[in-house]
Amino acid sequence: MSQSISTKPPSGMRDFLAADVARRRHVVGVVQRVYESFGFVPLETPTIENLTTLLGKYGPEGDQLLYRILHRREKLQRALEGGAATELDLADEGLRYDLTVPLARVVANYRDLPHYYKRYQIQPVWRADRPAKGRFREFWQCDVDITGTKNVVADAEVCGAVATVLRELGFTDFKILVNHRELLRALVADAGIAAEQEGLALVVLDKLDKVGVDGVKKELAEKGVAVARTESLLAVLDRAREPEALRSLAERDGPAGVGARELLALLATGASGPAATHIVFDPTLARGLSYYTGPIFEIGVAGLAGSMGGGGRYDNLIGMFGKQQIPAVGFSLGLERVLLVMEERGMFPALGVGPEVLLCRMNDVPESEAIRAATVLRASGLRVEVFADLAQLGKQLQYANTLGVPFAAILGTKELALGAVTLKDLRSGEQVSLPLAEVGARVRRV
Amino acid sequence: MSQSISTKPPSGMRDFLAADVARRRHVVGVVQRVYESFGFVPLETPTIENLTTLLGKYGPEGDQLLYRILHRREKLQRALEGGAATELDLADEGLRYDLTVPLARVVANYRDLPHYYKRYQIQPVWRADRPAKGRFREFWQCDVDITGTKNVVADAEVCGAVATVLRELGFTDFKILVNHRELLRALVADAGIAAEQEGLALVVLDKLDKVGVDGVKKELAEKGVAVARTESLLAVLDRAREPEALRSLAERDGPAGVGARELLALLATGASGPAATHIVFDPTLARGLSYYTGPIFEIGVAGLAGSMGGGGRYDNLIGMFGKQQIPAVGFSLGLERVLLVMEERGMFPALGVGPEVLLCRMNDVPESEAIRAATVLRASGLRVEVFADLAQLGKQLQYANTLGVPFAAILGTKELALGAVTLKDLRSGEQVSLPLAEVGARVRRV
Repeated sequence: MSQSISTKPPSGMRDFLAADVARRRHVVGVVQRVYESFGFVPLETPTIENLTTLLGKYGPEGDQLLYRILHRREKLQRALEGGAATELDLADEGLRYDLTVPLARVVANYRDLPHYYKRYQIQPVWRADRPAKGRFREFWQCDVDITGTKNVVADAEVCGAVATVLRELGFTDFKILVNHRELLRALVADAGIAAEQEGLALVVLDKLDKVGVDGVKKELAEKGVAVARTESLLAVLDRAREPEALRSLAERDGPAGVGARELLALLATGASGPAATHIVFDPTLARGLSYYTGPIFEIGVAGLAGSMGGGGRYDNLIGMFGKQQIPAVGFSLGLERVLLVMEERGMFPALGVGPEVLLCRMNDVPESEAIRAATVLRASGLRVEVFADLAQLGKQLQYANTLGVPFAAILGTKELALGAVTLKDLRSGEQVSLPLAEVGARVRRV
Repeated sequence: MSQSISTKPPSGMRDFLAADVARRRHVVGVVQRVYESFGFVPLETPTIENLTTLLGKYGPEGDQLLYRILHRREKLQRALEGGAATELDLADEGLRYDLTVPLARVVANYRDLPHYYKRYQIQPVWRADRPAKGRFREFWQCDVDITGTKNVVADAEVCGAVATVLRELGFTDFKILVNHRELLRALVADAGIAAEQEGLALVVLDKLDKVGVDGVKKELAEKGVAVARTESLLAVLDRAREPEALRSLAERDGPAGVGARELLALLATGASGPAATHIVFDPTLARGLSYYTGPIFEIGVAGLAGSMGGGGRYDNLIGMFGKQQIPAVGFSLGLERVLLVMEERGMFPALGVGPEVLLCRMNDVPESEAIRAATVLRASGLRVEVFADLAQLGKQLQYANTLGVPFAAILGTKELALGAVTLKDLRSGEQVSLPLAEVGARVRRV
């Protein structure tokens, strides 16, 4: 018996006890039902992917945060004997980092998917990030994507699906911020930032709501972008926020005009569905991931630093896996972020979890009779625990109270002879002798 | 655009498309509902555990099959510079190998769990085994365990829960084979096999149904157990199978008698619940895992090599993680095994998956009106896909057929003016003009 084993989960990982699971399932159940009402079908991909699938899709920071699976047996032996020098010598598999790259692999792999593949996926992902409040190394994403079309209907539908989820969960004050990568690139160029610094500028700009204007200026300056240029960019973006600014950008030639026109179409189409008044243009929205090509989205909610989810159009990702370039757009909800805000705001309904009835067996009743009675109660739809050991009734009722079970069904020889139990309401203290077959209706009626 | 990336999942891993997910959810839904009716509450533990938690719990073969997470950054650098020689230098975390060891860790970690912690857990586990037909490297277990009591009620309840699951899934012919580790040890000794070869004998005996009598003799002979001893053991076990044999074993002194008496109690108590006629004594049942201490269980079903699940009592495992020795018993269903048999036998009900209505937009209808109409249909509870692009109606209906959608809702300018759609039943070809608000009732009525 060793005392030295830690009984905690690893850093950044969590155990979910019954009440946690119930809350998570509540949210996942709503997400699933709403996504299906939009015609999406489920997909699940493996936890482990080949590193060739994962590497180079998330940018250098992403590659650093991948969990990699150590080689085993002969392969490990060979690597060590060959003088393994880097991660790539020791691993060729890693853990799923998001749900978009596996989707792209799946779309490239299965040729008989529908022309419009509308899939949702609700699974955990792993990132070896420094753990912090609200940031975990294992966390769940709830993704919805449409492949096979560039039509704005698809962009509006993923925004509508996410908006419906949030509304059904009880959110009223959220915003779906939208921007467009092409438009943003044009505005970055307008500010006089060189093309080769554009990617960098977007990554840093994405942190604006976390680090503020001064933080963005400082970080970009450290990376070689003159403060004057950054100030110019922020001014350009500020002007784009003015009413009618988007309409005049839409009149420009080239990618900026295309982007602005696509955004106007998305705002109009989105607003005619559940995204309604939630969908708004935010010219500073950048999104960190490099694979976005068109409209980008993010959910903002008062009091939450960071977002509850985001997404966008990525028309070039699937082509990295196959011969065919297939356009796609998607939205990802962060389960932990949604749960965090719902907990802070007390948005959960009462979630019945655990047994409704504790079957208390008196000393002179055989185990087999307790099992027989519990079987009848369960057949009537009740969740029933049998007190396992022999104990005084008081001790059994005390256990029922610590469990929070609302009813005790007491089985003594007298009840046994009658095919009955004494049903005790543990909140009121009332008790009544009832035939086994009537207990279900009584418990559910109260 | 690289063509060289494989788009397949890694060896032993699978993608689950919509129909697969629907079947898996059907089974998991039944398991969950039944386990909850027995008063069990859910637990979810992290995918990644510390290796100190996992190592030494599953025997040397198990340790070999663990997926280990490669160190990162400085830790990896230090290991490589220090001349990493073994797996232990390069990893201190691994993937969950079963659900029992994480449960033991959780019970040791959380002091405010109920005295009887009745938890169920339905999650994937990972084993780097050689993939084969029906054997995967990522697979799901559905576990149910009771900690805190040695009473036979607990053993009978986990058997009853699993039996109820199988019955509700439609199985009628399964057996819950039971044996007892203490009894089995005594019979191994009766056969003249030395105490130090006992563990080995049990591991090999566990393969009896796969490799047969000759296979067991051969493998044990290779490991130093004389063929005569193995023959003697098989004869002893055969005799134990005779009627009344268990009763006479129960009269013996020592652990064999205790084991036999516990088995008789389990058979009687179990038979009074849903395990009913399914529960039978099998003296050759051994179970591979080393941590079992008392009764052991396994589900046998005609036509399946191997089992659909197994379990047993493990009174010493939780003590490996904490100061307190807490008795426990559990049963684990293998989701993939259950699915395999259900598929072979055609046991799945019709599982509605995917949209029920395809909204077809005629060329002169704006996107925003299609979104608006879909929003109304979804609010009435329908699963609705909007055809994203502009296309001839014929092409849209053809797509509906490839999707298997039963209804098309056609939206042209005429329908738009009336607040209606033309609802076409794609099976009968019938079509009717209906106000949007009446479509839900019509689709569901048919």
